[in-house]
Amino acid sequence: MMISKVKNAMSTLVGGMMPHGHHHHHNHHSGGGQTCGPDSLPPRFPYGRPDFLDLTPELLQYSTEHASRPVLTLKRDSRLPWRTGYAEVINAGKSMLNEDQASCEKLFVKKPSSKQRNSSLLEDNGDGTGIPLHFWGVYDGHAGSGAAIMASKLLHRLIRDRLGEIFHLLENPTSAPPICLAKNGSPYQVDTKKGAAQETEDPDAVNDSSLRFHMEKVVSLESLVMGVIETAFTQMDDLIEKEKLSYTISGGCCALAAIYLMGKLYIANAGDSRAIIIRNNEVIPMTNEFTPESERQRLQYLGFLRPELLGNEFTHIEFPRRIQHSELGKKMLYRDHTMTGWAYKTIVEDDLKFPLIYGEGKKARVMATIGVTRGLGDHDLKVYNSNIYIKPFLSCVPEVKVYNVDENKHGPDDVLVMGTDGLWDVTTDREVADAVSAYLSCCDPSDPMRYTLAAQDLLMRSRGVLKERGWRLPNERLGSGDDITVFVIPLAGQESET
Amino acid sequence: MMISKVKNAMSTLVGGMMPHGHHHHHNHHSGGGQTCGPDSLPPRFPYGRPDFLDLTPELLQYSTEHASRPVLTLKRDSRLPWRTGYAEVINAGKSMLNEDQASCEKLFVKKPSSKQRNSSLLEDNGDGTGIPLHFWGVYDGHAGSGAAIMASKLLHRLIRDRLGEIFHLLENPTSAPPICLAKNGSPYQVDTKKGAAQETEDPDAVNDSSLRFHMEKVVSLESLVMGVIETAFTQMDDLIEKEKLSYTISGGCCALAAIYLMGKLYIANAGDSRAIIIRNNEVIPMTNEFTPESERQRLQYLGFLRPELLGNEFTHIEFPRRIQHSELGKKMLYRDHTMTGWAYKTIVEDDLKFPLIYGEGKKARVMATIGVTRGLGDHDLKVYNSNIYIKPFLSCVPEVKVYNVDENKHGPDDVLVMGTDGLWDVTTDREVADAVSAYLSCCDPSDPMRYTLAAQDLLMRSRGVLKERGWRLPNERLGSGDDITVFVIPLAGQESET
Repeated sequence: MMISKVKNAMSTLVGGMMPHGHHHHHNHHSGGGQTCGPDSLPPRFPYGRPDFLDLTPELLQYSTEHASRPVLTLKRDSRLPWRTGYAEVINAGKSMLNEDQASCEKLFVKKPSSKQRNSSLLEDNGDGTGIPLHFWGVYDGHAGSGAAIMASKLLHRLIRDRLGEIFHLLENPTSAPPICLAKNGSPYQVDTKKGAAQETEDPDAVNDSSLRFHMEKVVSLESLVMGVIETAFTQMDDLIEKEKLSYTISGGCCALAAIYLMGKLYIANAGDSRAIIIRNNEVIPMTNEFTPESERQRLQYLGFLRPELLGNEFTHIEFPRRIQHSELGKKMLYRDHTMTGWAYKTIVEDDLKFPLIYGEGKKARVMATIGVTRGLGDHDLKVYNSNIYIKPFLSCVPEVKVYNVDENKHGPDDVLVMGTDGLWDVTTDREVADAVSAYLSCCDPSDPMRYTLAAQDLLMRSRGVLKERGWRLPNERLGSGDDITVFVIPLAGQESET
Repeated sequence: MMISKVKNAMSTLVGGMMPHGHHHHHNHHSGGGQTCGPDSLPPRFPYGRPDFLDLTPELLQYSTEHASRPVLTLKRDSRLPWRTGYAEVINAGKSMLNEDQASCEKLFVKKPSSKQRNSSLLEDNGDGTGIPLHFWGVYDGHAGSGAAIMASKLLHRLIRDRLGEIFHLLENPTSAPPICLAKNGSPYQVDTKKGAAQETEDPDAVNDSSLRFHMEKVVSLESLVMGVIETAFTQMDDLIEKEKLSYTISGGCCALAAIYLMGKLYIANAGDSRAIIIRNNEVIPMTNEFTPESERQRLQYLGFLRPELLGNEFTHIEFPRRIQHSELGKKMLYRDHTMTGWAYKTIVEDDLKFPLIYGEGKKARVMATIGVTRGLGDHDLKVYNSNIYIKPFLSCVPEVKVYNVDENKHGPDDVLVMGTDGLWDVTTDREVADAVSAYLSCCDPSDPMRYTLAAQDLLMRSRGVLKERGWRLPNERLGSGDDITVFVIPLAGQESET
């Protein structure tokens, strides 16, 4: 019965059974479902696993078996940039399909030609010219796989195209980016004496330059790339919203991306996935997780400033548990958006509303609905049985950290590990580092599969094996029942490219 | 001429020349001035230096000489709790009086008696009963010294009184604080089986206890003390606002407080003062500074959500410099409340407004007015020549960090250093630690003056000496022209108490 359900969902999602023209614009029904009835819009992209896995329809079907949870890895004859290793597994039944997605691409940043300007997001034309850009993305979907799939197909292209807009600045990495550009965004003649840009076409510019350059921040090229990545995430989120008018794009997703450009690795995280660098068996954390607990004060502040977003059902104040009507007038522990500690307050009628942030650890939720506070999609996600939207409380902007790859020496066992929360919920950073280091040190450095085998090893440590009492780790603790996706990326990997 | 101006300001502030009943309620004129004309309200507290310095009027006058900047230290026959060392010096002329203030107190937390309930803030009655509480406060005033003086007199009493309200919980430090208290705040009978509080007077409580205690956060006593400190800062700020109806309380102040209670040191910081622990010559930073740069995103977010607070004069978007009208339509670097990196945007009319956050480093300002973003007071601070209030952008809530004194071994050279920004602007944490360690290691451990001499040594390193070209450090760099206040507090100090 499980199989027939899967088949049914898959054929709908894979098929594109709906005629493309049959659109309902301004469709407002919930995006939580994965099926696509006769009244719905067609999916933006069909369901599938990452292209680089190159699955046959039979293997795609096989990958969804919740009972056996087969581990998918990169095939022996496939090759990802930098010899990247990859492994994934579906959840133990919490959703029909694997809602994780991944992408790994080598792209080229190019100066936009005049005709390309308004037709971005093209596939790389593969002529190998331009500035190379390596991209790894891990997307953890929820309430459907639509947003995760779409982001895995397009986010890296958006980033590439936005980098193209500053191509002339990337070409001159030693000079600081000009603060102001001409209307067409074209490069300037730079007045090197002041280190700042001036347009020759503008006669005013010279006259008032003393005023203009009086107090001026120097912005580094690195923070310009960070800005590109941040705004590309926002653009991706806007694109999902826009295309939801014409397509079904279900759910939302956490997005974790690693971008290697000109010697630096930019790690951008929006959600609760995690990336760590393991160097010399030392852990360098590259992400923070964004959850109702870690972002409590930001969310409470919004609820405080915009109480209408709480729909008269929620209170921005946090309490350690629900309050009962009979407790009115008593004193209860609370904390508001300004506090880290707790204090007592006298309970009033308004405090009986449900707290905006409620629950602990993995069970913490925003408005009793969602357990992550950053990501893409979720535009029509509402509190159950209400008209209260969650989206205003979610941020689509990642936190970006930079690691200077070229300034550090890396051995073949130094890696970047990226994984969805399924990996990290049961395995600590330290355990992951020890496992990777132990595995790689036993593994022939020239084996093209070594990073994929390390990824598979990590994945198995978090999934465990199926016993009578469910998925269990060697120490008898519960394994992760979540979808799990792992990249193991060798930091000396670009040296292996030719 | 300088001297006569000082005398005039001092006699006004010290004197209380106005008859106390002569109040203008709802007085709204700017609190920036320090003088007190015939139309003004009397000062809440007269100007002075910390009581523990025990200055004669002549010495008080002498302390204000900007030309010589005499260093004031604790007298040889004075003794502060824990043998605390202290030194201060006035600024080089940026304000008439020293706008820094400090306090150092040993207080006792007591169960509030029924008559005390509504008459808090009393001086300690000194009978030595109750739970001992040590307090060190450093207040860096701006635009007048009124807020700093008032806070230095009252904040520790507010904290003591709020701790009194949870006295029965402090008495039982091993049991977690109950989540809910009776109306009168009195202790409960605790149902130990569930570890949660129940009132015997409430028959419902037992019936639905399974529901009540279904999901319940455990709150530690430590986070309750943190909450006491956070809410006491808010209460202090509210008190300043309220008493401004009856008194002149000029300006605002950064507040940095260290509270030692039951084996733990709570460091609470609202502003740009700084505290570090030096242990074994290692630096443990105990504060973050709150400035327009460090709190940029919080401030921009408020400006974005509540644009009316920007008074149509400011934009919440940050630009690296002012934009000129002739640049409309061009592209300029910017970042908004969601971004850490920079991106280009096309300049529109709205972008010509002045940026909410502008300038770099020590010159960064909120609405071109103030260089710190947390503190007490400033209720009537406005943007120059406008009706735009700054206060909504300022937070009075400190960040609180906890250091477990009793769980660590401390030698006589392990100290907590607290200083206003005058100290830290020219001396790094590392330099302070090296200087303190070097000084103390050469100094007789039994000398009661050793921590005061170390504080004086630190202060001299930041003030420098007066040369032809101003106050200079040994390396010829400029010394700090700001008010400087330094506490050096031995962490083994409570062992010296009897």
